[in-house]
Amino acid sequence: MTGLRRFSFNQATAQRWPLPDVVAGCVAAGVPGIGLWREPVAEHGLARSAKLVRDAGLAVTSLCRGGFFAADDWRAENLRAIEEAATLGAPELVLVSGGLPPGSRDIDGARRQVADAIGELAPHAAAAGVRLAIEPLHPMFAADRCVIATLGQALDIAELFDPTVVGVVVDAYHVWWDDTVYAQIERAGPRIAAFQVCDWVTPLPEGVLLGRALPGDGCIELRRLREAVDAAGYAGPIEVEVFSAEVWARPGAEVLDAAITGYLGHVV
Amino acid sequence: MTGLRRFSFNQATAQRWPLPDVVAGCVAAGVPGIGLWREPVAEHGLARSAKLVRDAGLAVTSLCRGGFFAADDWRAENLRAIEEAATLGAPELVLVSGGLPPGSRDIDGARRQVADAIGELAPHAAAAGVRLAIEPLHPMFAADRCVIATLGQALDIAELFDPTVVGVVVDAYHVWWDDTVYAQIERAGPRIAAFQVCDWVTPLPEGVLLGRALPGDGCIELRRLREAVDAAGYAGPIEVEVFSAEVWARPGAEVLDAAITGYLGHVV
Repeated sequence: MTGLRRFSFNQATAQRWPLPDVVAGCVAAGVPGIGLWREPVAEHGLARSAKLVRDAGLAVTSLCRGGFFAADDWRAENLRAIEEAATLGAPELVLVSGGLPPGSRDIDGARRQVADAIGELAPHAAAAGVRLAIEPLHPMFAADRCVIATLGQALDIAELFDPTVVGVVVDAYHVWWDDTVYAQIERAGPRIAAFQVCDWVTPLPEGVLLGRALPGDGCIELRRLREAVDAAGYAGPIEVEVFSAEVWARPGAEVLDAAITGYLGHVV
Repeated sequence: MTGLRRFSFNQATAQRWPLPDVVAGCVAAGVPGIGLWREPVAEHGLARSAKLVRDAGLAVTSLCRGGFFAADDWRAENLRAIEEAATLGAPELVLVSGGLPPGSRDIDGARRQVADAIGELAPHAAAAGVRLAIEPLHPMFAADRCVIATLGQALDIAELFDPTVVGVVVDAYHVWWDDTVYAQIERAGPRIAAFQVCDWVTPLPEGVLLGRALPGDGCIELRRLREAVDAAGYAGPIEVEVFSAEVWARPGAEVLDAAITGYLGHVV
């Protein structure tokens, strides 16, 4: 299907679908790419996962995720994540920075630590042929999950490095509300390492993590954002990634089908 | 108490405390100012509320709120709110812009409508001696409550008008995560119409409205923000405003006492 040429199914969208079934489902649906997560990959076995996906002819579009730079073991953990991405053939390792250290109010300090940590990791990523993709999360996660809260801020860090080594993720869910987002997408240009889509609906659930919707079910101008990343020169995969308790309760194949329908109807 | 010179108790912090009791509590605690809301004022009666507060010697520091410009009756409703502010002697009418119209994805259009509506209201506000204070809310409210999501965006609109007629609210809860907030506070200067404080804690509750904490109980650098608004030339009242199901469950006098303790320990 031509319409699916850039489509990638992020496996977190069907959280409870075992990896072999996700892979088989993607192949059956004519989906060319898949976004992987470290935990389910580890569960299935790293080498086994790499072989499974490769044998199926699927491109691994990204690996989620490194980051969480406030954790004591951030260095070892991120070096492992870079190696895993290389093994899987994932060109992009998504970095979610992590929030404030427990009890801390020093958000500037936490942000400096993110830039410092990426500086340490960059040579390792370059050597492994993996790009570090800084993902700004929605500001509602700034305290406990990601002190990098806007695309502009992610670019301020990414621009310290070679664009082939450090890029940014544009996830529609996290950036749609920002009145500077189109200017920042233009600024990002070749640093756009990944483009992810889902949709925004309210009310947000407790903890605000699992309240996303399939593309087209909410209020985000997804097609406009897709056109903007295209105009900025991005021609890479478009991942559908939906964290949703409601979506997760549905059978995997049905979710993939709905993701494709939403993508064709509202993104491309 | 010198320490309370700039302190104002926003009545929404003790949501279930009847207005006469809030007023008596403030007087007993040596609190000089009170922030009022239209609904409880209407319940007690507008003229009666104005007299109650005036007779108690309390300054009305702000009235919440006008705005919600996507509603059909926004014009009449906001003109009423301006008159109410004038009657109460509130120098500032807080404007919360409202979210997207039902079913709409046109956030740019909704934002233009906010600027247009404020343009229509400004002469009426000027005539009534009330300043319109645009409050950016946290981006997690952008879809359903306030399309104005950053201080920079609020200033882009406010700067179209005379600073004595249209200003901005700096509410720590809504702006603390923004890496440009200190630059925007400096830019705001004489347009800072109100400074409000509470604190950020996680996890956020369902609907994300009632998860705020008393000053000092979360991760916001409240003193740093207060010093920044002071450095920008703001010398006005500092309102403690906490929306919290947990705080609302406590007796009003106890909440006022806790608000004062948090203010003295973490804000001034």
